[in-house]
Parts: sequence; structure tokens; C-alpha cells
Amino acid sequence: MTLETSKSIRIFVALVHHPCVDRTGREYTTALTNVDLHDIARSGRTYGVEQMFVVTPVTLQQRMVGEVVDHWTTGEGARRNERRAEAMRRVTAAASLAAARDAIAERTGASPLVAVTSAQMPDADVSWDGLRQRLREVTRPVLVVFGTGWGLAPSVLEQADLRLPAIIADPETGPGDGYNHLSVRAAAAITLDRLLGAR
Amino acid sequence: MTLETSKSIRIFVALVHHPCVDRTGREYTTALTNVDLHDIARSGRTYGVEQMFVVTPVTLQQRMVGEVVDHWTTGEGARRNERRAEAMRRVTAAASLAAARDAIAERTGASPLVAVTSAQMPDADVSWDGLRQRLREVTRPVLVVFGTGWGLAPSVLEQADLRLPAIIADPETGPGDGYNHLSVRAAAAITLDRLLGAR
Repeated sequence: MTLETSKSIRIFVALVHHPCVDRTGREYTTALTNVDLHDIARSGRTYGVEQMFVVTPVTLQQRMVGEVVDHWTTGEGARRNERRAEAMRRVTAAASLAAARDAIAERTGASPLVAVTSAQMPDADVSWDGLRQRLREVTRPVLVVFGTGWGLAPSVLEQADLRLPAIIADPETGPGDGYNHLSVRAAAAITLDRLLGAR
Repeated sequence: MTLETSKSIRIFVALVHHPCVDRTGREYTTALTNVDLHDIARSGRTYGVEQMFVVTPVTLQQRMVGEVVDHWTTGEGARRNERRAEAMRRVTAAASLAAARDAIAERTGASPLVAVTSAQMPDADVSWDGLRQRLREVTRPVLVVFGTGWGLAPSVLEQADLRLPAIIADPETGPGDGYNHLSVRAAAAITLDRLLGAR
């Protein structure tokens, strides 16, 4: 298999629909959002992400992922927009984060280093520049994980290898009130740019 | 009027629906996309953007902007999600980019420095770090302009004060094929982070 997406880095993303938390902190399963698939696939393709896993235990939702991908990568959708097809080809459903990790291990021969993101991350243990640097040094693949709803469940944050800081504005110029209510589409784009964008 | 969004920078964004180009390069007017309003308003609020102008000459679409904003800032929508309301309160329609510039001049007392973005920008004349620095020095407000469809019409790019480079992946790690088919929601998020994000 040729590695068409990056020269040396093997990077993957997971968009997690379970286990997430709702606004009260209770664990729940979120529903698929079509525009998340498109936006994060396009951002992923731009920065060299090898595959995007849409993590949901709901088989009907897994099937919906497959149908959306099929629409854009075969037949009418692919003919209409080849650039979109190229992004969507990298999207696949996974029943759990463990299943996504297994799929990466099978594909690359090594289990991935898992980095999680959150709008609230009091226990961050790697800086943005730190992970950017590390990505250029590790030989293992890296999986960057995004939550939906009100964010990833605490168990996912705890079990990851690395916890990235919340994305915030420059304190010198920003509103300074800690507001960071980004959509997951925006957060994923910024995350990939911070880790893999041209400087 | 209190300046609640930033300590010294007065930054505005415009999401332009006319004049844009279609896939063949012909000028046209794009339709409003609801999720663009939400995502860019939320990213804007996070980074201290003072107002987001949705530029369209179509009066029905201008009215739709008002209705979406009203839904989220008054009544049921505001009660359900106060953080969303806070972001949406900064969104307003404008009939043209000139009208948006005039509104900024009236609000701030100075005409804005206009910086445009594009996925293809062969004539970029300011670097990302250059504009980041400049934002911290100028006393004039700054308006960052995003296109929809296949991008801003050439006339808009030419008439701007500054042209930002296309957003691309690090050539060391990226796919290296120049693919940068980001959604405008992702491009706006990355732009604000590059100019105003914590480093």
C-alpha cells in the first residue's frame, strides 16, 4: 500500500459519538452530524490525515457513515466533486475507540499514540508545540481524538496517552473570559493546523 | 459603548456571498448556509471578534440572517443555550462589503484595514505572522474577509488592503500536493487562530 498522505508522519483522527457527556456531565451517545464528516474529512485531507474514524456503537449510525461516504466517493457525488470524493474516501465508521486503535495497529503495524482534545483540559500534559515536535520524531502512528456533544467522557480523557490544552485566544488580545465554545469542526481544523500547518 | 471583546484590537469578519466565483470562475451570488453563521460566530466570539457581517445583496437572505440571529438571541433559543446566544448576538447582515466597511467606520470612528483570504492567493502581500504582529500595532479596526462558493471575486481581492496567503499544510509533513479544500468554517477558524490564538 502506498502512503500518499504524508512523507513520514502517520496521523489519524477519531470523531467520538460515544462515550461523550451532555450539558449536565452525564454520559450519553450523540447523533451523527453530516457536516462534521465533510468538514473534518476535508481538513484532514488538507493536512495529510490518513483516516478519519467516526466512532459510534449504534449500527444504524455506522451504516449511515458508510452511505454518506459511498454517495460522495462513487457515482453521482464523486463525478460532481472530485476534491470532496478524495476527502471522503478516508472516512470510516468504528464501533469504539478501541476498534479504531486496532484498525490503525493492523494498518500500520504499531499501536497509535492517542492524544485527546477538550474545551476544558485542566490536566493537559503536552503543549501544542510539544506534540507538533513529537509528531515529527515518533515512529508510531498518532491518533487525535475529538468529542461531540459537551465533550469526551472523563474515562476517554484519562485513558489517553496525551492530553492537549484547550484551544484559547491569545490572552493579550482575546476577550479574556475563557469563552471557547468552538464547534468540533472548528476545533478539529485549528488542532490540525496547530500540529501540521505551515508556519 | 463598552468594548467587551478585546483589550486593544478591534477585529471584524465578513462572510461574503456576493461577489463570489463559481467553479468555472464566473461571478455569482451564493446562498446562505446556516451552519456557517453558527460556526464562524462561535469562533469569532472565542477570539474576540466584535462583529460578523454576512454580506449578501439579496434582501430575503438578509432577512433570514436576522431571523436566525433573533431565534438564538431572544426567546426559546437564548434560554436553551446562552453561550450560543452570546456568539450570535455579534452577527448582522450587510448588503455589500462597502456597507460593512461603512458600519465599522461608524461604530469605531475609523475605516477598517481590509484583509482578504483565499484558497488560491498567488499575490499574497502579508504573511500570517506579519498580520498577527500588525494587528497588535494598528489603531485602525481590521476587517478579515472570507468568500463562499469557489471564493471571493477577483475584484474583492484586488481592492483589499492586504492579501493573506492560502492556508496550507507544513510542506515537511503534509501531502505536498497543494490540496487545501477547506470549508469556509474551517478556514475562518484557522485564520482567527493564526492571527489571535494563544501561542
